Amino acid sequence: MSASKEIEVGLKFTPKFDSNGLIPAIAQDAATGQVLMVAYMNDEALAETIKTGRGVYYSRSRNKLWRKGEESGNVQIVKEILVDCDQDCLILKVQVNNGQCHVGYMSCFYRSLKTGTSDELQFNAETVYDPAEAYKKK
Amino acid sequence: MSASKEIEVGLKFTPKFDSNGLIPAIAQDAATGQVLMVAYMNDEALAETIKTGRGVYYSRSRNKLWRKGEESGNVQIVKEILVDCDQDCLILKVQVNNGQCHVGYMSCFYRSLKTGTSDELQFNAETVYDPAEAYKKK
Repeated sequence: MSASKEIEVGLKFTPKFDSNGLIPAIAQDAATGQVLMVAYMNDEALAETIKTGRGVYYSRSRNKLWRKGEESGNVQIVKEILVDCDQDCLILKVQVNNGQCHVGYMSCFYRSLKTGTSDELQFNAETVYDPAEAYKKK
Repeated sequence: MSASKEIEVGLKFTPKFDSNGLIPAIAQDAATGQVLMVAYMNDEALAETIKTGRGVYYSRSRNKLWRKGEESGNVQIVKEILVDCDQDCLILKVQVNNGQCHVGYMSCFYRSLKTGTSDELQFNAETVYDPAEAYKKK
């Protein structure tokens, strides 16, 4: 089998990290199918996610591991990890019990493009928690 | 309002393309919620998607616009475009009538990590069309 065929239809997990050592990961609500957020993992974040069963990412803005929920408490319990055909993107099916977006919404995708426009958004959700409360110093 | 607040809670669509001029876009089945594929768009692909209502991407391997379905016939009818909090990722809710993965599956995410392992995959879907047939020269 060729190398690319092996990646596509083989059963060895060989995640392809990009030139920055990162792979995108979609967190999807295991119960509802709602896409909650998209973040990035380095190999360490992925290994810790697999080992602990909690969503762990790599923060590109803070340049360090980001254990989802370590500040807000809004953790992700990982039920399943899926990989795509060329193994350069992951889906984490997660169980959550509160909003996953730091702005206060269940999902980061709380706005959509207004029909018939190319630059106007509209809200399609309401906030489910107060970030000021969740992120305040304990 | 600060620039980052404006991006997060404003209603102006200002998609943030990365250093390669690309933004990731998740195609999600509008009817079932299944994540079908993740691809990338440059500004031209995004503009054409908005204008035509069909999923158009930028192929990083072929370095050109990729009108999804132009070869296979498996087009995406775009019902809604969502953007995330920091406007660096999109979701396209799409209507499809056949498999979206070039390997023959409905979704590119046809394998999952086997429970209790860190490098073994298992199939979680069956093929829905024959790529050899779909992609053969007409």
